[in-house]
Amino acid sequence: MRALRWDGSHLTVARAAREPTPGPGDALVRVHLAGICRTDLEITRGYLGFRGTPGHEWVGHVEAAPDPTLAGARVVGEINLACGACPACAAGLGRHCPARRVLGIAGADGAFAERLVVPAANLHRVPGAVPDRDAVFTEPLAAAFEILEQCPQVAGTRAVVLGDGKLGLLVAQVLGAAGAGVTVCGRHAANLVRARALGLATGEPAGGADLVVDATGSPAGLAAALALVRPRGTVVLKTTVAAEHRIDLAPAVINEVTVLGSRCGPFAPALAALAAGRVSVAPLVEAVYPLDEGVAAFARAATPGTLKVLIDAGA
Amino acid sequence: MRALRWDGSHLTVARAAREPTPGPGDALVRVHLAGICRTDLEITRGYLGFRGTPGHEWVGHVEAAPDPTLAGARVVGEINLACGACPACAAGLGRHCPARRVLGIAGADGAFAERLVVPAANLHRVPGAVPDRDAVFTEPLAAAFEILEQCPQVAGTRAVVLGDGKLGLLVAQVLGAAGAGVTVCGRHAANLVRARALGLATGEPAGGADLVVDATGSPAGLAAALALVRPRGTVVLKTTVAAEHRIDLAPAVINEVTVLGSRCGPFAPALAALAAGRVSVAPLVEAVYPLDEGVAAFARAATPGTLKVLIDAGA
Repeated sequence: MRALRWDGSHLTVARAAREPTPGPGDALVRVHLAGICRTDLEITRGYLGFRGTPGHEWVGHVEAAPDPTLAGARVVGEINLACGACPACAAGLGRHCPARRVLGIAGADGAFAERLVVPAANLHRVPGAVPDRDAVFTEPLAAAFEILEQCPQVAGTRAVVLGDGKLGLLVAQVLGAAGAGVTVCGRHAANLVRARALGLATGEPAGGADLVVDATGSPAGLAAALALVRPRGTVVLKTTVAAEHRIDLAPAVINEVTVLGSRCGPFAPALAALAAGRVSVAPLVEAVYPLDEGVAAFARAATPGTLKVLIDAGA
Repeated sequence: MRALRWDGSHLTVARAAREPTPGPGDALVRVHLAGICRTDLEITRGYLGFRGTPGHEWVGHVEAAPDPTLAGARVVGEINLACGACPACAAGLGRHCPARRVLGIAGADGAFAERLVVPAANLHRVPGAVPDRDAVFTEPLAAAFEILEQCPQVAGTRAVVLGDGKLGLLVAQVLGAAGAGVTVCGRHAANLVRARALGLATGEPAGGADLVVDATGSPAGLAAALALVRPRGTVVLKTTVAAEHRIDLAPAVINEVTVLGSRCGPFAPALAALAAGRVSVAPLVEAVYPLDEGVAAFARAATPGTLKVLIDAGA
């Protein structure tokens, strides 16, 4: 099959990549669309030392599964492949299983391919009302919903989202729908226009915010967040970069700020929000490239200010 | 009067420093003992740009106060001098008042002097059973108790305290008394001996701790803490240094760690713990210098591994 492969120094489209082989409990999925995430770009800069097929935001249909009723179902899938046997898994924290592999990020080939293998337990059926172009956002939208799991009391708070990129515009919509007063702060005029079209306030926020989300993807994001949050407020860190932060953390100590690392989130509320139209993802699509042009798709996605670039696996 | 003065480049004992003048609501205090904190050492390295008399850990007696029944009382005092009029103060967050001065740290002369002025509202009477040598630890012990305010559920957790210095040994005792299983991790053999004499476990902790407190006073402390905490665990940051941290924060994001900045704490439980003997501070005293030898006291306190150095103001 065809797949986009990263060998540690080059990204190439392999025309005869090995077909993935389902193990016990695995489903074989034919990929429809897959989204390029900032983490994918970081992988091509050395993040986590991954080698193989990247891609962890995807929608497809099941070609084979242990449960035959799944066959043909349109699905999305959670990306953490937990061992199922360790104390973390026993405690329901499979997303943090120390032996986990992560689809397209660590130890498991991902979705920039015609087919991929995913544990059937990780799959979620896509409601009929949600087209592929929206469903492919389920994974990053779930990451935005993770903030509500960590900070359930956002209604009525004053929130700032740093970063007008894909994740920032998802996070801002999720916080706004949960009742926070949200300002998006970014540097890309075209993205801020899109943010306002989504009903979001933009601009230079005043300090003293209750909640600041760093979705800049930049090591400078945390310092900017600490400058905007009120004493005893909360900063949510979404940025993972293959770079060191250089930061004076004294403000976090003096102001007794809570800094929450935040990663993957729950798929169910993300799919429900897409089905109900509470979050708009169509305006976030910048371009769609066929899988054969995956290298060009990555180059486009790496251009500053670019929103979501999708790869069509030609199903 | 005599006072230890920092002018931005030199620390000197002034023999004819200006007597402090109480304003409305202020008490005039004759200092007995004052402790040198790492923050004081950082001030002499440029931290916060403070100029004047440092010193914020102290015990003394009231010479004059708006409430005459306070006269003669042996007291300790909270260090944040709130404006009393802003929204933070109205919300009971005077410790985070944006217009606050901080005794011996920001905008207000401190306790390395014969006398100091403190708002009477900041004072706490010292129980008769607590000698000056113990009472002078109230402020840093309160900072240790702040962790219990921020993390009330420490009983039964596995905690690691990074740093075998003054604050580390206070924090470890407070967490242990609250029911946590605590390991102190440090580099100073003599301090670790004292830690074990206090009934604390020491050694290289295994990873996967529920709670890690960075009391290293080093910019490297946070990275070490992130390496030891379990996924979704908590790191408490006590380190304030006049230096940048260089750190890869990806582990905090990936493991969804909660990082809590933690500063000043409640005096009441600290005084109660001293009165009840639940925390031992006498073994933490390294040396006592007269005020006239304050410069030598600072030099001693700055020697790596030194525990608490006290300054006796000769009352």
